[in-house]
Order: sequence, then C-alpha cells, then structure tokens
Amino acid sequence: MIMFQSDYLEGAHPEILKRLMETNDIQRVGYGEDIFSESARKKIKKRIGRDDVDIHFIVGGTITNLLVISSALRQYQGVISPKTGHINVHETGAVEVTGHKVITVDGRDGKLSAEDVKMIMENHLSDPSKEHTVQPKMVYISFPTENGTIYSKKELEDIRKVTKEYDLYLFIDGARLGYGLASPDTDLTIEDIANLSDVFYIGGTKCGAFSGEAVVISNSELKKDFKYNIKARGAMLAKGSLNGIQFDTLFTDDLYFKITKDAVGKALKLKDAFTKKGIKLFGSSSTNQIFPVLSDSEITKLREKYLFETWGKNNDGKTIVRFCTSWNTKEENLNSLIEDIEKL
Amino acid sequence: MIMFQSDYLEGAHPEILKRLMETNDIQRVGYGEDIFSESARKKIKKRIGRDDVDIHFIVGGTITNLLVISSALRQYQGVISPKTGHINVHETGAVEVTGHKVITVDGRDGKLSAEDVKMIMENHLSDPSKEHTVQPKMVYISFPTENGTIYSKKELEDIRKVTKEYDLYLFIDGARLGYGLASPDTDLTIEDIANLSDVFYIGGTKCGAFSGEAVVISNSELKKDFKYNIKARGAMLAKGSLNGIQFDTLFTDDLYFKITKDAVGKALKLKDAFTKKGIKLFGSSSTNQIFPVLSDSEITKLREKYLFETWGKNNDGKTIVRFCTSWNTKEENLNSLIEDIEKL
Amino acid sequence: MIMFQSDYLEGAHPEILKRLMETNDIQRVGYGEDIFSESARKKIKKRIGRDDVDIHFIVGGTITNLLVISSALRQYQGVISPKTGHINVHETGAVEVTGHKVITVDGRDGKLSAEDVKMIMENHLSDPSKEHTVQPKMVYISFPTENGTIYSKKELEDIRKVTKEYDLYLFIDGARLGYGLASPDTDLTIEDIANLSDVFYIGGTKCGAFSGEAVVISNSELKKDFKYNIKARGAMLAKGSLNGIQFDTLFTDDLYFKITKDAVGKALKLKDAFTKKGIKLFGSSSTNQIFPVLSDSEITKLREKYLFETWGKNNDGKTIVRFCTSWNTKEENLNSLIEDIEKL
Amino acid sequence: MIMFQSDYLEGAHPEILKRLMETNDIQRVGYGEDIFSESARKKIKKRIGRDDVDIHFIVGGTITNLLVISSALRQYQGVISPKTGHINVHETGAVEVTGHKVITVDGRDGKLSAEDVKMIMENHLSDPSKEHTVQPKMVYISFPTENGTIYSKKELEDIRKVTKEYDLYLFIDGARLGYGLASPDTDLTIEDIANLSDVFYIGGTKCGAFSGEAVVISNSELKKDFKYNIKARGAMLAKGSLNGIQFDTLFTDDLYFKITKDAVGKALKLKDAFTKKGIKLFGSSSTNQIFPVLSDSEITKLREKYLFETWGKNNDGKTIVRFCTSWNTKEENLNSLIEDIEKL
Repeated sequence: MIMFQSDYLEGAHPEILKRLMETNDIQRVGYGEDIFSESARKKIKKRIGRDDVDIHFIVGGTITNLLVISSALRQYQGVISPKTGHINVHETGAVEVTGHKVITVDGRDGKLSAEDVKMIMENHLSDPSKEHTVQPKMVYISFPTENGTIYSKKELEDIRKVTKEYDLYLFIDGARLGYGLASPDTDLTIEDIANLSDVFYIGGTKCGAFSGEAVVISNSELKKDFKYNIKARGAMLAKGSLNGIQFDTLFTDDLYFKITKDAVGKALKLKDAFTKKGIKLFGSSSTNQIFPVLSDSEITKLREKYLFETWGKNNDGKTIVRFCTSWNTKEENLNSLIEDIEKL
Repeated sequence: MIMFQSDYLEGAHPEILKRLMETNDIQRVGYGEDIFSESARKKIKKRIGRDDVDIHFIVGGTITNLLVISSALRQYQGVISPKTGHINVHETGAVEVTGHKVITVDGRDGKLSAEDVKMIMENHLSDPSKEHTVQPKMVYISFPTENGTIYSKKELEDIRKVTKEYDLYLFIDGARLGYGLASPDTDLTIEDIANLSDVFYIGGTKCGAFSGEAVVISNSELKKDFKYNIKARGAMLAKGSLNGIQFDTLFTDDLYFKITKDAVGKALKLKDAFTKKGIKLFGSSSTNQIFPVLSDSEITKLREKYLFETWGKNNDGKTIVRFCTSWNTKEENLNSLIEDIEKL
Repeated sequence: MIMFQSDYLEGAHPEILKRLMETNDIQRVGYGEDIFSESARKKIKKRIGRDDVDIHFIVGGTITNLLVISSALRQYQGVISPKTGHINVHETGAVEVTGHKVITVDGRDGKLSAEDVKMIMENHLSDPSKEHTVQPKMVYISFPTENGTIYSKKELEDIRKVTKEYDLYLFIDGARLGYGLASPDTDLTIEDIANLSDVFYIGGTKCGAFSGEAVVISNSELKKDFKYNIKARGAMLAKGSLNGIQFDTLFTDDLYFKITKDAVGKALKLKDAFTKKGIKLFGSSSTNQIFPVLSDSEITKLREKYLFETWGKNNDGKTIVRFCTSWNTKEENLNSLIEDIEKL
Repeated sequence: MIMFQSDYLEGAHPEILKRLMETNDIQRVGYGEDIFSESARKKIKKRIGRDDVDIHFIVGGTITNLLVISSALRQYQGVISPKTGHINVHETGAVEVTGHKVITVDGRDGKLSAEDVKMIMENHLSDPSKEHTVQPKMVYISFPTENGTIYSKKELEDIRKVTKEYDLYLFIDGARLGYGLASPDTDLTIEDIANLSDVFYIGGTKCGAFSGEAVVISNSELKKDFKYNIKARGAMLAKGSLNGIQFDTLFTDDLYFKITKDAVGKALKLKDAFTKKGIKLFGSSSTNQIFPVLSDSEITKLREKYLFETWGKNNDGKTIVRFCTSWNTKEENLNSLIEDIEKL
C-alpha cells in the first residue's frame, strides 16, 4: 500500500541524517545550550530578519501548543481559536489540562477573522459581570490551517491590529509553516509571520525532520523565564542537540523552503487530477493537504492501492478524505495515484 | 576540553544511526503504532520475560515521570519519594504542576526503605483527620538512584511488599536502568525490575539513544486509556517510530546491556584511580556516575582539561563533583583522565 | 429601587436565622461532622427516599460544580454540557482550571437531549484516533436550566438511559432545584432526580439559605474519598455546621419546597402580566426566572423603579431581560411591578 | 463533654447574629459588591491605616491560601513555607493541586527566618541549571503560627527586607490573626502586618465569625484581575454579603480585637495552671492555643470531662495535646478545667 494519509510517514530528510552522522561524536552540552542549537538559532534569526527574538526547540506540536499557551496566560484567561483549530479538536484537551479554556469561533475555511476577535472582546468587555467569564488573552491561529487554507497578508494584519487593540497575544501554530509559505496563493513571507505575531513556531516534524518545532518569541513579556516553563512541562530534551542539528540542517541553503515547496507542487498536481476528473474539493486548500469529496465506490477503488484519511461527511452525503504530500512523496507514487484518479 | 559532566554528551550509538538510515524511506503510520515500535515492544517483552505488559515510548525522562505519576493518581493523592529523587529536585516541580504533592523521606544514599514507606502510611492511616492531608498512593524510586546507588533485591522486595500491603503503586524511574543492572554489586535483573513494580521505564536518552524512555506497565489499573494520557500531556510524537527504531536497535543482540556494562566498567576504573590516590568518594555508587570529593586545588587542576559537574559541598568542606561515563566514553580520554588523577 | 435581578438579594429565610440563634452556643465538631449536618443528612435521605447516598454540604454553586466534575473525571476526560450551561458560561472557566474540557452541544431551550449525547459518543467511539480527542465521561445538566426551563421525566429517563449505555456519569446541577420541582409543568419529583442521576445537588443559596449546596452522591464510584477532594479544592468549611443547620431547617416541614413553590407562583403572576400585555417571553420558563422581551422604552420605564438583568439580544432586535422571584419577594413589590407592567 | 479542641466549636458572636437579623430583609447585590461588604472594607482600611489596599472576603482558610498563592505565582514558581505551615501539612495538598510546589524550611517554633529565605534564594540563584528547579517567588508565614507562636517586629522586618531584596511576595496567613495581635508578647500591630506584607488576611472563621477571611492586598501586582481568580477557583459567594456583614460587625467598636484578647487571656490562665502543676508546654505559644505535654494517665483523667486534640509525640515519650480558647469559651468551663488540672 502506498501511504498518503499524512506528512509524517517516513524518517527525516537525508541531509538531516547525514548531519546527525557527521556530528555524532562531537561532545556538546545538554538542554538546548549546545553549539548546534546555537547555530540553528542564528540561521533562523537571519532568515526571519530579526535578531531580537528568543528561539527554543521543542519536540512536537501538541506540547509546543500547551507550553506556549499555558506560559502566556494567567489561570483565569483563555485562548481564542477557530472551532477547527488543532488545540480544540485533536489534542485530547491538552490546553484545558493546563487549566485554560479554548474559546471557539465558528470561523470559515478553518480560519477566524479580525471581526470574530473583535466581537468576542466587545462582548467580554461590555459584560457588567465579566469576572464571571473567562478573560480572553490570546488568539491562536494555524498557518496554514488544519484545512490547508492560508490567511492573506491583509487578513493577518487585521488580526494583528485587533489583537494589539485589545491587548491580546497572537500565537501562530506553524506545524506546517513551510507548506503555507510555499502556497502559490500566499502573499506572506516568514518575515511577515515573525513580524505579525507575538510568538509562532516553525514546524519541523511535519516538514522533513524526525521531530522538533522551533518556537520564535518576539514579545518580551513572553520571553521571561521561558526555560523554566519548558522544564516544568517536561518539554526539555536532555539531548537538545537532536532538535538543534535538525533545524540547523533545515535552515542551511533554505532546505526547509525547498522541500516544502516541492511537496506543495506535488499536492497541487493531485488537486488538478481530481478537479479534471470533476471531483469536488472541500475547502480551498492550496498547500500540501488536499481534501477531495469522494463517493463510496471511489473510495473503495482508491483504497485498493492507497492509504488516505477520512476527514468527515460532506453536506452532499459524500465523504471528505485527505491526501498529504511531503518532502518524501515519491514521483512514481504520485504518478501512479494520478493515473488511478483519472481512471475513476 | 574533554567532557565527563553527564551521560548525554554526544549523539546516539552508531547502530541506531545505521538503523535510522536503513529504515528512513519505509512508510509507517504515526503515534507509536508503527512496525518498528511494535517490533521493539516484542523484543522488550521477551527480554523482561513478560507478555502481559503495555509498553509506550516517551521522549524524555521528566515528561515520562509527570505522565506516569499524574495518570496513576487522583487529584488528592501524592507520591512518596526520597528527598534526592529527580522528581523532587530537578524537574522544576513538574509533578506539582500536574497537581500532586511529592511526599519526601530523607532516605539514605539516595534510597528510601520499606520502613520509610510503612511509617508514612501508618501516620496517615492513624490520623483521625487524614482527609486534611495528602493521601499517599504511589512510591517513586530510581534505579540506579540519582546518587548512582542501587537497591538490593531484598530491599526492593521489601518495598514491594509494603506497597502491596498499603495498596500503593510502585514506580521505578529507570532513566539510567542499564547502568544499574550493569553494576557489579547488583543482584537484580531486568526481569526482577519488571516483576517487582507496577510500572517502570527503561531509559534510552542516557543509555545510548538520542531520545526515548520505554514505559513498561504491568499493573492493569494503570494500563487503561494510557494513550489518552500520553496525548493530553503532549507526550505523543507524530513520528513515534523515532523512539521505536531506537529501542528496537538497543534491544537487538542485547546492545543496551552491552554498552551500559562497558560504561560502568570505565566508571569503576575512574573510581579506582581516585581511591588509589586517597581521594574519598561521596556515597557508594557502583554505576556510571562517580562522586569524588575534591579540594579546590584538585578541581582547578582537573578543570584545565576536563569538564565535570559540581554536586555539592561535603561535610568536610571539600566539594563533591560528578564524573559520568557513557556508551561513547573514549578509551584515550579515560586513560588521560586516569593519568591526571594519578598526578594530582 | 426594588430589586428583581436575582434570587439571592437578601439574607436567609427567617426560620434559618432563628435556628442559628437557638443553636449558637451548642458546641459541635468541625468540617461537617457535627450533629446538625448529620440531622440534615438524615432528613434529606428520608425526603428523597434513599438511604444509600452520601451527602456533603458545599458552600456555593461554582465550587460544587468544579469539585464534583474534577473528582469524577480522569485528566483526559471531559464533561458534556449544553452551550448555555452555567459551567460553560458563567464560571470563569472553573472546570477548565481543574483541567477538563467542557464539551458543548447547542441544545434547545437550555437543554440537551439523549440524542445529543448519543451523537457525541458515537462520534468519539467511531474515531480511529479517538485518543487524540477528549474522552467524554460525564453529562452535566441543570434542573431547572439557566433559562428557567425543565426536563420532563421522559427526557430525563432517556438521558439516563444513554448515559448508562455509554458508561457516562450523569450530574444534575440543582442550584435552583426547588424552583424546578415547584414548576406547575413538571412531572418530576426529588426522588426522581435522585434515582435518575449519579450525583446531583440541592441548591441552598438561591433557595432561601445564606449559603450551601447539598451534594447527593448515589454512584458508589463517586463516593470514595470524596472528603479528600473537598479539602483539596478548599471546599471544606471549618464551621461546617453553618451549612448543616441551614439544610436541617430547610428540610424540616418541607420548608424548602414551600418557599420555592411560593416564589414560582409569584413568577407566574409576573409572566401572566407580561403575556396579557402582549409582551413576548423568551424560552418557556415555568420556574422562578422569567425572560420578557422588551423594547428600549419599556426597559427605560421599568428601570425607574425596578432593577432587573439584561439577558441578551432577541432576534427581533428587542432585549431579553430577566426577572427573578424568591422566598422573600414581597407581595407589595410584586403587585407594584404588575401594575407598572399593565401601564406599559 | 466540654470541648477545647479548637476555636471553631460554636456558631458566631452574638453581635454578628444580631446584625444578620437586622439586615436580613434589606436588598443588596451579589458577589461581594453589596453595601455591607463596602462598609466592612472601609472600616478595615481605616483600622489598618491604609486606603490603597484591595480587600476581598473569602469563605475559608484553605481556599484563601490556594487562591492567593495560585493567583500570585506563574506555573513554574513555588512558595516557601515553614515545614509546619498549614499549607504544607493540613490542606490535602491544595497548593500543589493548583500546580505549585511548597518549598519547605525546617524553621523553629513554627517560624521561618530571614536567613532561611536568604539561603534558599542564594542556592537557587547560584545554581547554573536553576531552570531545572522550582523558582521561589513567595514566602508564606502564619501569624500566629500553627504552633501558637508569633514573629517579633524585628523578625518580620527582616523577612520583609529579604523578600524585597529577592523580589519575593510576602503572604501572611492570618487565620488566627486576632489572637496573635492579642498576645502579651507581641510588639506588632495590625498596621505593621499590613505594611510589612504584600498580602495578608484577617481570619474570621476562627475569630468569632461563622465564616470568612478578609484578604488585604497591598501589592498592586497582586490586585489586578483578582476577582477573575476568585471566581475561577469557585471562591465567590453569590450572597457575598454574608461575609461582609460579619466583618462589618467585627470591625465595629474593635469587636474583633476585644474578643480575641479575651480568648488569649483565658488561654494564658490555662497555661499558668499547667505550668504551676509542673506540666511542660510544647513550644512557646502566647496566643489562644496551648500545647501541654501530658502523660497517658493525665490524658485519661482529663478526657473524662474534656475534649482536646492530640498534637503529636514529644521527644520525652509523652504526648503533646492542644487546648484552644475562643470568643465563646465559658468562664465556668475554664474554671472547671483549671480545677481539674490542679487535681492532676
């Protein structure tokens, strides 16, 4: 069976493995203070065009989310998220486990809008007994979203403006950041992501690494004592260099951007194949995840050779499924799938 | 500078790197359900002689400790630990962050005794207002301890008996398990560790892997829904195979036991060198950490070429320091250090 | 100004004060073990027709909710609630602060249905990666609801059935229980409430007491060690007799039921007055809270003499407001308000 | 049996009951915003000589402790307490349940010293891996202590100085504040307590009220959003006036100080009686709790007529017991006990 159900189906990009081999015997200190992590930090700072940020490498997405959110909020505060946000759906309540409510907005296409945030804040602030409700203090969005969609620069600037107006932190979950920035439809750069947020992360696990998310903190309120928070949540690796070396590799010669661009290109070919076949797509993803809406017989046929994920029911009764590409999607597997789509 | 300050100073054992290379392109599912993790589980079960255990691979020690403890306890319950226990000293209160008190006993040589546990339980149960105090429900010990010492089989059996008598869970932190089992002084096997606990873990990070601790749960009360707990604490890796492959390698041809035995052998040579020189050792470690008590001038001399950790003040005013060996301690570095000890 | 904005606007029922005076000098032990609390427990058990329950007096509603829910759930579990549930809206995220997600259903008229619960459970159980989502383990409903509405016996029995089918606890928040049971439309008795739930509480604070909610636990799984939980959440009063005496008084000669019945009668008179005037009511409350939908000018006129709460915007652009009656609503104030409604 | 086992054995001071009767029918708003609570706040501010403090009335001691501590600390921070501190011993780990470690010092006579705090801070700050340990951020002391002892003005000033030096909050648990200030040995006034702390509370429950502790916050960092915290912990009473009226009464004509002074006077008579009889006292309490060290036969004899608490074993093998007096200790009971002590 050929797997398309996610973007974390294999090991790590060969450059990473090579670098792990080369450095293996070099002694280094623990806990992310090593020379490789330091080098990775420098390269990332250069690439995002900012020297005034703190960068920490955390092992995976959920722990990064719970760590960033719980470190930023006081106990009575909550985080605003689209209903479809990863923290609201697929993290077994990890944010709530840290004691914080996820305040959801319905959103659209996996995204929330500046208007959504404004409305929540106005409702809260105009409530005479507001102390009886959770105080919103952070906005969480994913770029790209869980639906593969992206915010435009204008949309993100508007959200940024409203978060500043209401003294909210803006946190961008970039578990698939590379793929979002590789979308042909985006007008955003990684510099914009850094400049338009208080904290964001550059996803490694889903973008070619074995593990690791690079948390970039630009708001100095959030920088203070962050390492205590990392340790208290169990998120500090003894061999922190494992993540450091991986990010150092990914940010050498723009490898991170090249491999995610390649993956998006492949996903768009798949998208084209479905579209040409007259198969509708759920949402408007232009990144490495695509969501065709299939009939039961189409699913059965494709399941003979391919693994992909069931995403939900469409309102026409058909089934939304998900295909993902990654740094390691083989040309021959892609072509085979495209042919089989054409034969549907 | 030659580093001896810990056992996580380099990458991973070459066999692990080799195996990561070989498997890199093989597609596998996420979250620890992959074939490599399954294979590792089988090998571990065989090695410990038990088929009725659940095994989960978790990325590091602190998150394993907080995960196991918080999953086992109800909110009003606490965990008994020696004062020197890692959870009590060096985890930034991670157990307390999950809402549980660490109930400490002074212990001796880094260890607690069955008598210590008995006394705590008798005090609790005889208290007419016991509901005003934390209910002890788990005993946490490390094997080997943070001081490098080990429990004898008799000591562990006695602790096991008392935990059963008082309906307590026994949890053994095996972050350095391999080194404990490689001690020339131990009469315990990994089978014993499995049979004399409700849950324990086999440390990977400090024993040759990049990352990973294999949690082995034998008490069925603790097995239920553990994967929900893993996810809710952010401890589930998308690319769970990273840990699986490492443990699969470590448990092939007893590699885990060979490399830790080698490391302990080197540590004992160091110990000998200090002893011959008339330098006292703190505690009675017979594992891969040794704790010589040095004068300021001895420290200064050794610091010219070597890095090692300051552990604390001895009661004779001198300083306790720590030297560690590992799977990757180079023969030439060891010999160089021994020569320099002789010259002190 | 005459106040109608809630049912906790004055002290306590005079019988309670009298009883506090009479008993004031009698020495009694602390923490709810006193003879008055014991007597109250006996009377409540008799009144609900069950001897096999545990009863604890807790000081207020929010702390009762967070205590019951957090005591019942493991860390990865959540509680299902109607979107309008008090725990979801007006408790500053107190349930989330204890680490648990409130899983909401839209519901209808402030209520959820057995079907709602069934759908959530089927979705959860059929999810191949269910460990990535919060496990529902409890259903929370209010009787009467925050909208003043009540469940019919059939509705409650259906919910009970579905909770048993899916191994969920059913928790009934009875902060205003007396008013629900006094509704002319109810076919439920307090015996039914006790028999159709795992745990519920009899609200004191909003039903004539200074403070206090009587938590009645019938499911033995939830009884164990509950006093530890009470203390660990700070919910144990040193002078527990304060609550005990109040409930002992309220459950003497059915005082609790008499005063809530009187209050509901008064509310229905208000309801009639609005209806006669052609003023629409929001929802279908038949308890002590009524929700007329008023124009701005009607509000302005009534605000000259009366205080009442703004509840929200109606979909016709008018404003939903809330009037409450209680054990202490004075006949003359009620009549004055009715006259002023007639003059609108 | 005549009870001496605690200072919360009866209802409330008659003046409180009288005031509750008089005000019972007066309508007032909820949640501590009422005119009685406002009046109480004014009186307390006047009495402590500070207008720049925030005052909140919370229902009991444990919930006050957990609320104040968890509101002040970030997740990775802990609170320093004497080993004998109430939060460390008798609150079922309520502080840990909120996620914070209690960092204990052995102390002396139930007290900690400025030196103790200094040592903890120096150890923490000089630790190169301090992020691996809990960051101390608050000092918790009780006045009087759980052992009935008091800090001198000099001792408190020294502690204050050291907390300022290390940027720590100083929190004084005044559950029995009145008795401490009534000690013949004290050189502290309530003004001093207010001026030498960041937050403290005036205990009501143990000093003549049914319930209630008045939290006085002088540090503006701790004032912000405190009402959100109160609600999120379930500590906000709907009928907040219950506490307000009680404190308004206690702070009218210095009632609080008169009744605690009377109680201490009675305790000292008991102390004298024991001393005259040659019975040793544990510790150096000069407040309303006294701790004679009795033989088994002395205990048996006194238990014929009196109830008192067992406190622990003395190092001479005898038993430390506790006798308490309160606002309601009857002259005849006191005299009877004194006579029976004489007859021992």
